[in-house]
Amino acid sequence: MSVFAELWQQRYGAAPADAPVAGTAVIDQLLAHRSVRAFLPDALPEGTLETLVAAAQSAASSSNLQAWSVVAVQDPARKARLSEAANGQAHIRQVPLFLVWVADLSRLDRTAARLGREAGANRYLEMFLVAAIDAALAAQNAVVAAESLGLGTVYIGALRSHAAAVAQELHLPPNAFPLFGLCVGHPDPARPAAIKPRLAQSTVLHRERYERETEPAAVAAYDELIQDFQRGQGLPPTAWSQQASQRVARPDSLAGRHRLAEVLRAQGFALE
Amino acid sequence: MSVFAELWQQRYGAAPADAPVAGTAVIDQLLAHRSVRAFLPDALPEGTLETLVAAAQSAASSSNLQAWSVVAVQDPARKARLSEAANGQAHIRQVPLFLVWVADLSRLDRTAARLGREAGANRYLEMFLVAAIDAALAAQNAVVAAESLGLGTVYIGALRSHAAAVAQELHLPPNAFPLFGLCVGHPDPARPAAIKPRLAQSTVLHRERYERETEPAAVAAYDELIQDFQRGQGLPPTAWSQQASQRVARPDSLAGRHRLAEVLRAQGFALE
Repeated sequence: MSVFAELWQQRYGAAPADAPVAGTAVIDQLLAHRSVRAFLPDALPEGTLETLVAAAQSAASSSNLQAWSVVAVQDPARKARLSEAANGQAHIRQVPLFLVWVADLSRLDRTAARLGREAGANRYLEMFLVAAIDAALAAQNAVVAAESLGLGTVYIGALRSHAAAVAQELHLPPNAFPLFGLCVGHPDPARPAAIKPRLAQSTVLHRERYERETEPAAVAAYDELIQDFQRGQGLPPTAWSQQASQRVARPDSLAGRHRLAEVLRAQGFALE
Repeated sequence: MSVFAELWQQRYGAAPADAPVAGTAVIDQLLAHRSVRAFLPDALPEGTLETLVAAAQSAASSSNLQAWSVVAVQDPARKARLSEAANGQAHIRQVPLFLVWVADLSRLDRTAARLGREAGANRYLEMFLVAAIDAALAAQNAVVAAESLGLGTVYIGALRSHAAAVAQELHLPPNAFPLFGLCVGHPDPARPAAIKPRLAQSTVLHRERYERETEPAAVAAYDELIQDFQRGQGLPPTAWSQQASQRVARPDSLAGRHRLAEVLRAQGFALE
């Protein structure tokens, strides 16, 4: 079996039905992604941060507005405080590099102000979305670059549970918002992460029009697949349907993040 | 000069100051990204779509909620209608494959409903953001995979100018929103795209705390760099400061997208 077919098998619990296009080395790397939550304390090679940022800046940007920033945190005390803001996640303290990705309209505000103009469109939800998408595309390029260097990463969305404290810690100006964190470090080979299975392609990929007839059966099959995976990892099995439904059941399932609109407005985003 | 240093030079208008980490082949590919807007009509190799989706599904997903979908459009009539929805962009008609990336909370609604539950958290802006970030990370992986196959891509944010029409065209259910499109095809070698220079790293990368003292000088230098680039492309030179400020000057600079919150609400997202 090719590396590609083997990775596909791990991702979907079954070999590809038809002969897919030959996987490139890059595609093999993408398919082999796993989020890493156990790291060695080793420092990163000199120049790693700059290389990751160059990869990030090479991602597409809506109208070339480049409406994002990234704050690189290496100071142990600051990492510890950010770990608290992310509900105590230990790997934030352990990694040598913690990146906070920022949806940043403030640079456009300042750029317009230097020309004596206003940036009135920044008051709209659309511009927050532009900034969030720009930041996410950039961050994902950094992840792909890091993995090509043998490094591991994990996104930290929990940073939004205490976004106001994070913004204050990092001295973010108005109209700059900490979207998510990213741990970057050397994976601990003693505690390897596994490839997490995903929903069947038929569930997320629609042809010409959105279609949901096959969804109930596909989700039921995935519920089984993910429980097999969890058993293999020594974890208590929980069907995806159960776990996902619980995660979105009520506002208080969001661990403080149901206040996002309020926190964004306090940070300057009018969200009109 | 290494490939890495040469790409860096094109991206920033200057060679890297310190010796950065050795670029991997993957990093070289990321740094070489350019958005392609001129395509050949040639069909894609069999299996390309499935390979891109496997790469997309291999990206991280917040709490494994997988809150996104993608609609693959190949029908010429539908591509023509979507091109109209994106203010007439011709490359949408020309490419063999047009992908519409969807922030999709509807699957979580249906999954909860099958268990007799409600998905109350889906009413919050936070969950729309989770879905948008999930979709963006997935799409960027598809872009990286496509480029490794020698294909070209360009994101189409203009689809949001007529998002309600796009949602109707693709039969999107409530709580599913067309975030952006992505053209995928063979780049026309007769009309090659160039690497677009970006702001200096000092402008987007902050260490420990957000810092803006060096920004005015760096933006002024970038204004010169981007005009040199435009002259080299035979385009009329416009400073980035001018172009970006104009783009965010007023709500009507957003080409209809200032109505995003209203359109999202009509599509089912309560955005609380």
